[in-house]
Amino acid sequence: MSDCIFCKIIDGSIPSTKVYEDDHVLAFMDVSPLTKGHTLLIPKQHVKDIFEMPEDVARNLYAVAPKIAGAIKSAFNPVGMNTLNNNGAFAGQTVFHYHLHFIPRYDETDGLKMKWETKQSEFTFDVLGTVAEKIKENLNA
Amino acid sequence: MSDCIFCKIIDGSIPSTKVYEDDHVLAFMDVSPLTKGHTLLIPKQHVKDIFEMPEDVARNLYAVAPKIAGAIKSAFNPVGMNTLNNNGAFAGQTVFHYHLHFIPRYDETDGLKMKWETKQSEFTFDVLGTVAEKIKENLNA
Ligand SMILES: [Zn+2]
Ligand SMILES: [Zn+2]
Repeated sequence: MSDCIFCKIIDGSIPSTKVYEDDHVLAFMDVSPLTKGHTLLIPKQHVKDIFEMPEDVARNLYAVAPKIAGAIKSAFNPVGMNTLNNNGAFAGQTVFHYHLHFIPRYDETDGLKMKWETKQSEFTFDVLGTVAEKIKENLNA
Repeated sequence: MSDCIFCKIIDGSIPSTKVYEDDHVLAFMDVSPLTKGHTLLIPKQHVKDIFEMPEDVARNLYAVAPKIAGAIKSAFNPVGMNTLNNNGAFAGQTVFHYHLHFIPRYDETDGLKMKWETKQSEFTFDVLGTVAEKIKENLNA
């Protein structure tokens, strides 16, 4: 896609610091890292987000995820790692070419803060059953 | 694994609200959802985290991720979606059987808050080059 910054990284017209490349994917350093070793994995095929991603693209992308995660871990010995994919601006997506963040975690000075407020009291087992039914209907649609 | 809650969900000895199942994976509702439609996707093979995940398990797991994401989107029409995998307690992992969260996003009342503090000033292009080299060395190790 001609105006996509990640497509330009793939074709080399914008420089990047690559860590891995094969026929299907490219991994490179996030230029606005949250922590040391923050890496992005993208499909070479331009797809906007997870909703547009064909099954074979997903398959070939995630096949290398454990290898990328393992290399970051071996390199910097973090205490944990989040892998994160944001879809839609409200969810934090800023480049509209699917990307998977690998964010190694170290300590409280980390650039990533996540606050989980579970809504467990709203979602009883019965309510979850209704929610699941709605998703199942749409899976088979 | 005999004391793993997700393995027990897979074998049916602990109840769950399933949305999808095939030979390789199971998707079911998170019992402590952050938002309506919060779903977990897990491999049937017990692997602790992304670091322990064999390539074929990763491949078969993510192959269905777009389908699960799409069904949640169709069911509840969120404005965005985060897919998130936590590895290690510091990164938020509480069950030590790999799982991928699908967290549809709606508005400011969401149960998920993420704060990104980029460390861009610390990581110049040169520094990123050094970081990338270290990861590459460990990819080939
Ligand atoms: Zn692109
Ligand atoms: Zn297990």
